[in-house]
Amino acid sequence: MFTFDLQHTDPASSARAGLIQTDHGPIETPIFMPVGTAGTVKGVHQYELKNDIGAQIILGNTYHLYLRPGMEVMAKAGGLHGFNGWQGPILTDSGGYQVYSLSDRRKITEEGVTFRSHIDGSKHTFSPERSMEIQRVIGADIIMAFDECPPFPCDYKYAKDSMDLTHRWLARCCEYVDNTEGHYGHGQTLFPIVQGSTYDDLRRASAEAIASFDRAGNAIGGLSVGEPAEEMYRVTDMVCAILPKDKPRYLMGVGTPVNLLECIALGIDMFDCVLPTRNARHGMLYTAEGIINIKNAKWKDDFSPVDPDSSCPSSRFYTRGYLRHLIHSGELLGAQIASLHNLAFFLWLVGEARKHIIAGDFASWKNDMVPRLERRL
Amino acid sequence: MFTFDLQHTDPASSARAGLIQTDHGPIETPIFMPVGTAGTVKGVHQYELKNDIGAQIILGNTYHLYLRPGMEVMAKAGGLHGFNGWQGPILTDSGGYQVYSLSDRRKITEEGVTFRSHIDGSKHTFSPERSMEIQRVIGADIIMAFDECPPFPCDYKYAKDSMDLTHRWLARCCEYVDNTEGHYGHGQTLFPIVQGSTYDDLRRASAEAIASFDRAGNAIGGLSVGEPAEEMYRVTDMVCAILPKDKPRYLMGVGTPVNLLECIALGIDMFDCVLPTRNARHGMLYTAEGIINIKNAKWKDDFSPVDPDSSCPSSRFYTRGYLRHLIHSGELLGAQIASLHNLAFFLWLVGEARKHIIAGDFASWKNDMVPRLERRL
Ligand SMILES: [Zn+2]
Ligand SMILES: [Zn+2]
Repeated sequence: MFTFDLQHTDPASSARAGLIQTDHGPIETPIFMPVGTAGTVKGVHQYELKNDIGAQIILGNTYHLYLRPGMEVMAKAGGLHGFNGWQGPILTDSGGYQVYSLSDRRKITEEGVTFRSHIDGSKHTFSPERSMEIQRVIGADIIMAFDECPPFPCDYKYAKDSMDLTHRWLARCCEYVDNTEGHYGHGQTLFPIVQGSTYDDLRRASAEAIASFDRAGNAIGGLSVGEPAEEMYRVTDMVCAILPKDKPRYLMGVGTPVNLLECIALGIDMFDCVLPTRNARHGMLYTAEGIINIKNAKWKDDFSPVDPDSSCPSSRFYTRGYLRHLIHSGELLGAQIASLHNLAFFLWLVGEARKHIIAGDFASWKNDMVPRLERRL
Repeated sequence: MFTFDLQHTDPASSARAGLIQTDHGPIETPIFMPVGTAGTVKGVHQYELKNDIGAQIILGNTYHLYLRPGMEVMAKAGGLHGFNGWQGPILTDSGGYQVYSLSDRRKITEEGVTFRSHIDGSKHTFSPERSMEIQRVIGADIIMAFDECPPFPCDYKYAKDSMDLTHRWLARCCEYVDNTEGHYGHGQTLFPIVQGSTYDDLRRASAEAIASFDRAGNAIGGLSVGEPAEEMYRVTDMVCAILPKDKPRYLMGVGTPVNLLECIALGIDMFDCVLPTRNARHGMLYTAEGIINIKNAKWKDDFSPVDPDSSCPSSRFYTRGYLRHLIHSGELLGAQIASLHNLAFFLWLVGEARKHIIAGDFASWKNDMVPRLERRL
């Protein structure tokens, strides 16, 4: 099962509130999806994701899970839900993005991509069909088309050829998915991906091509790869205007709290990013009042809560001075507290956005929030 | 406040069940104390210690806390309880043990020990008085005498000179503690430490000297430093026979689950060790059925719970196959799950020992348990 109800649209922006239903439960949009690369959101228990962070859907990475634990173990576990115990919805990427980042270890052909494992150097091939089959074994509720994500900057010819290849691969993904079934009795929904780098005509052509496949949801890839934020917003705006309104739109790999609010205003419903957990491990905390670099000396004897207004019990329990000590000392608990905090904040932020969309004052709320979110505390 | 009630004595061994009362709450003995070196039990939240593990008292390390966050921050936080949020009893070591392990960076004199920080090479001096004052600032409920812990093996003359120095230093510790007050309004109780290496006459002399100080509790140091387990048991037995029965006995730095049961049988009431958390991070799990090396291939597709009988929810929630994957992949969550598991098991084990002491069948229960605990699963 996969349905999307468009519940509210903001009168002063393109922001939307919606409800996705999957066989593993509902997802209220706009939503942020914590990234669980290797089947674990780093430093966070599955029950903390549910109870303390309010996560509604998490990501798994096909490339990482394919290499370790491998598909034999994954199948025996009954897929990622059985493997890691997370019982809510899961989305997997196609494995492509991480393979491309192995720059000197991979080769792209019409058939697919041949690459060498970053773990043991062993040789593997991903094709559209192989990516779909691997995602069948992982058993995510939402699976992503096998695309090519070009780097930024990227010349026009490369961007166009790459986009055309992505569209041809999408046809093969659809063919495979439409003629096979999930392994575990629950539905798996394929999202195609708009590419085209930062070239307006390519992005428009890609958005039109993707829309014509008429899948249950659509994604925008190839952004947040180094281009200026204004470019990202411009392309997102243009693509959202073309993608169907009655289907969820997922902006891949984005972003900062400000990026989230700006792209929600453009009509994006779903986000994922490693930023809240990765930056947490380095002591950068996001709050409704601005950004805290907990390593700074100013926090060393601040014994107020990490964030007194956090929805996360951990952020109310521990103090800033203690968290600073833990991050400075390289203690595991520091990464745990900061990761819980940032993820809870990202989930709170999209939840607030949703409330304001429903209340009809999203645009003015967003304009108040953006400068606060960018402050350095 | 510090009181000790000896509640039950096992008819067939020297095992005892007791109750310590401190200003931060009660401690039922025999007890295992999780080690929180830098003010954190690695990988474990304070509320997990309390709710999921059943910890009643935790340790802090004077050397580490003195260097980082330092005593100025510690004083402003209101001591370690204010700093890390753990509201139960705390015990601190004297800082000596860790200073001695800096072998080429420290120098021992009658006055104390001069050493260089392992963090930045800065020069510091610990003396009996300084150690007591630092432990006043940390604010632990139980504070340890500043002793010298000789290595194993150790020649007789070094062991005797070192023991005599420890006794002279103890007099200075008592003098300091008896003429000062805690900083935060709660009581702080000094435990002296029996030394004497593995020499019977020295151990007897030290136990008698320590007993004559008539403090509220007594510790045995200098064991579990590389000597055979039989030596440790022999010395512990001999020392326990001399130390007063009506005061708690703390065997420092011990040990494995089997060590705990054997030493409880000899009359020990309190234990601490980094072994459950350190070994957890390397994938070694202790259970009532034996020891699991979760890295072994045999666990890779075992999707039964980490330990279906664990008192810890995490060990019942996650599977062995998933934990193996996490430890193999170096994921933070692996260290978290395994640390929770081992600590919960150690606390369960001493709790069971206590129940059997009270029931009067400790000795036979222990004899059943020891071979099971040593099995490799
Ligand atoms: Zn990102
Ligand atoms: Zn130990």
